[in-house]
Amino acid sequence: MTPRVPGAALLAACLAALAGAHLAADAARLSAGIASRVFVVERNAGSLAVYDLADRRVIGRIEGLGNLQHAVMTFSRWLDFGYIATRSGRLTRIDLQSLERAGEVQTSKSSIDIAISQDGRFVATAEYAPGGVTILDARTLDVVRRIPGQFERDGQVHLSRVTGIVDAPGNRFVCVLIEGAEIWVIDASGAEPVLERRIPTAAAEPYDAMITPDGRYYVVAHLDSADVTVLDLDAREASPRVVSLREPGRAYDQGAPRKLPHLASWAVAQGSVFVPLVGEKRLAVLDRDTWAFKRSIELRGHPVYAVRAPGERHVWVTFSGEADDAFVQVVDVGSLEVVHTFRVGARIYHVEFTPRGSHALITANAEDTLFLVNARTYAIEDRETLRSPSGVFGLWRAFTMGL
Amino acid sequence: MTPRVPGAALLAACLAALAGAHLAADAARLSAGIASRVFVVERNAGSLAVYDLADRRVIGRIEGLGNLQHAVMTFSRWLDFGYIATRSGRLTRIDLQSLERAGEVQTSKSSIDIAISQDGRFVATAEYAPGGVTILDARTLDVVRRIPGQFERDGQVHLSRVTGIVDAPGNRFVCVLIEGAEIWVIDASGAEPVLERRIPTAAAEPYDAMITPDGRYYVVAHLDSADVTVLDLDAREASPRVVSLREPGRAYDQGAPRKLPHLASWAVAQGSVFVPLVGEKRLAVLDRDTWAFKRSIELRGHPVYAVRAPGERHVWVTFSGEADDAFVQVVDVGSLEVVHTFRVGARIYHVEFTPRGSHALITANAEDTLFLVNARTYAIEDRETLRSPSGVFGLWRAFTMGL
Repeated sequence: MTPRVPGAALLAACLAALAGAHLAADAARLSAGIASRVFVVERNAGSLAVYDLADRRVIGRIEGLGNLQHAVMTFSRWLDFGYIATRSGRLTRIDLQSLERAGEVQTSKSSIDIAISQDGRFVATAEYAPGGVTILDARTLDVVRRIPGQFERDGQVHLSRVTGIVDAPGNRFVCVLIEGAEIWVIDASGAEPVLERRIPTAAAEPYDAMITPDGRYYVVAHLDSADVTVLDLDAREASPRVVSLREPGRAYDQGAPRKLPHLASWAVAQGSVFVPLVGEKRLAVLDRDTWAFKRSIELRGHPVYAVRAPGERHVWVTFSGEADDAFVQVVDVGSLEVVHTFRVGARIYHVEFTPRGSHALITANAEDTLFLVNARTYAIEDRETLRSPSGVFGLWRAFTMGL
Repeated sequence: MTPRVPGAALLAACLAALAGAHLAADAARLSAGIASRVFVVERNAGSLAVYDLADRRVIGRIEGLGNLQHAVMTFSRWLDFGYIATRSGRLTRIDLQSLERAGEVQTSKSSIDIAISQDGRFVATAEYAPGGVTILDARTLDVVRRIPGQFERDGQVHLSRVTGIVDAPGNRFVCVLIEGAEIWVIDASGAEPVLERRIPTAAAEPYDAMITPDGRYYVVAHLDSADVTVLDLDAREASPRVVSLREPGRAYDQGAPRKLPHLASWAVAQGSVFVPLVGEKRLAVLDRDTWAFKRSIELRGHPVYAVRAPGERHVWVTFSGEADDAFVQVVDVGSLEVVHTFRVGARIYHVEFTPRGSHALITANAEDTLFLVNARTYAIEDRETLRSPSGVFGLWRAFTMGL
């Protein structure tokens, strides 16, 4: 019998191994597809939680990512990888299939922003310390080019913090130098990215920037100022202009608005740009083409974010301050009126719509909760406990200019 | 020895099996991510070719799909499945990971169009024979509801062909009855989809329809007519209106334009709608908000498709007729002028941009070739031999309203 046992044992082991391999394949295989996965920054925990929109549950977590203050995630156009750059200066790549780390690179001492080129070949980080831009090969993670944030003033070379990096048409990156007060256009269409244009901002102390969803205008905010710089990226002759967020004929408290919120908070919908005004319970509405002040919309509190819903019919507004920060107000883009107000959860940090607009994912930081909201009925369809949830990033961002 | 042989043989077989399992896992694992895959209809062959944008080569083929005339492919929001409905009346589901069939359902004798609900739960096919709409559970492929294309005329109930089915805001489907001359709005937000509204078209003999990219207007074309019906889906009171494609003050040949091209050929970009006019070497430009005729643009030939590039700065136009059908003309959306003309390959059938706009995929049917074109330089970066290639469908469509 003995000689037969190894055979039987082998067979059993073999079958078990095959079953194991099958099981592993099953585990790698999702209950739905890869795009059901949404990443949520757990800010204080330094982790990314993975929420599955199909299963409506948290399916994983990537820990130890560093300082995730203002951390933004971007995705490869092939949906193989996600990339996150941290205030710790580390860029981490995440395999979207296995949800495991797939490479880490220390690009600087502190990075603030990240973008991916339109052809998917390059990832770029904007850095505070030592100050500059690092461009990496998206596949190999090799550093392809470092551009220090150098600028000249009074005959001396200084180093500037860089922020607001985005992808732009023509396979470019655009970013802004904070101390340098310059907009940089980097052409990433050749073998090696090159600094194509340096354009002074129209005012001093830029601190954040955004690109309109059509990739046409780059908008720069300035500290302690109600003015923004608007650069038409299509114009042959670069001529950044100053646009005021002050309502004509309206009296302002001295110094208000003192500071603009981050520019990711601006919503561009149909013919309007919706701007949360800090220090005021109003949303400014600018004309999308002329950038002229159209009117303002009274709100229940101090707005923080304005997010356009897919289809551009509505803009959802979130608030600061305990009395208001659990609420969302819905503004009709046609009538420019508030058409609905509803409560989600305390200290809302982020609103992310599913791409065809059926649902919104909302993080309520003070309640440690991620909410799934039906965008038609405003019903809360799911809630998940997370650790100090902040930014919410869906894979559809891979296909959206400027994200 | 004999007893040991089975053991050794088993071990060898076992190792081979394990290696095979490993190999299969490797094969399932992509060189890039799943979104690198683009599906190309091979019309006469009844197959779908799979082109990998990252590897720039054809990596697979799904055969025997039936009659693929005008076949359109749609994708689940999770990117687990693609769906194609054929003129043979068969809906085939394709696993986007394994590229194998994952279910087939005979929904009718002939289907012409397909759509997926915004929440991803339902797939709907518009059918010519026997005429109606079939709505399936996107996961189980169970038929959830069949709605025959019934309409009443002169006191009698008739059966109509149905076409132009699209997803619309509020988790709805919209389609049009050809003989019935009715627009149907189906509410798919509950457990079972219900026919919510039936709205007569503003003219007779509708034959195709489209929805604007913001999901607001449903546009229906009528046979032998230069008029289209435009329905504002936002309006409480349904009031379809007639919009004329005739240029005011312009003399027309009797009867021209005789027939409109398929409405997927209309491009909506910034404030304009670009309409290829059949029988004329011109593109009509309508105002996006008022639908008033703005002007027309002279072209090198008879236009077939107008496709907006991401960013909405350009519209690429293709042509019919041997003298012109290898060419693309690029229209500037701002100046409404042709700014570039270039040759790709004979009998262009489809232009599909990558979502951030770096490249376009173009099929040249008469040359049996798929071209990858750099959208900035117009350089042809890759060409692949395919069998009578027609429609090109990228996975990013999963995230685009109306596709």
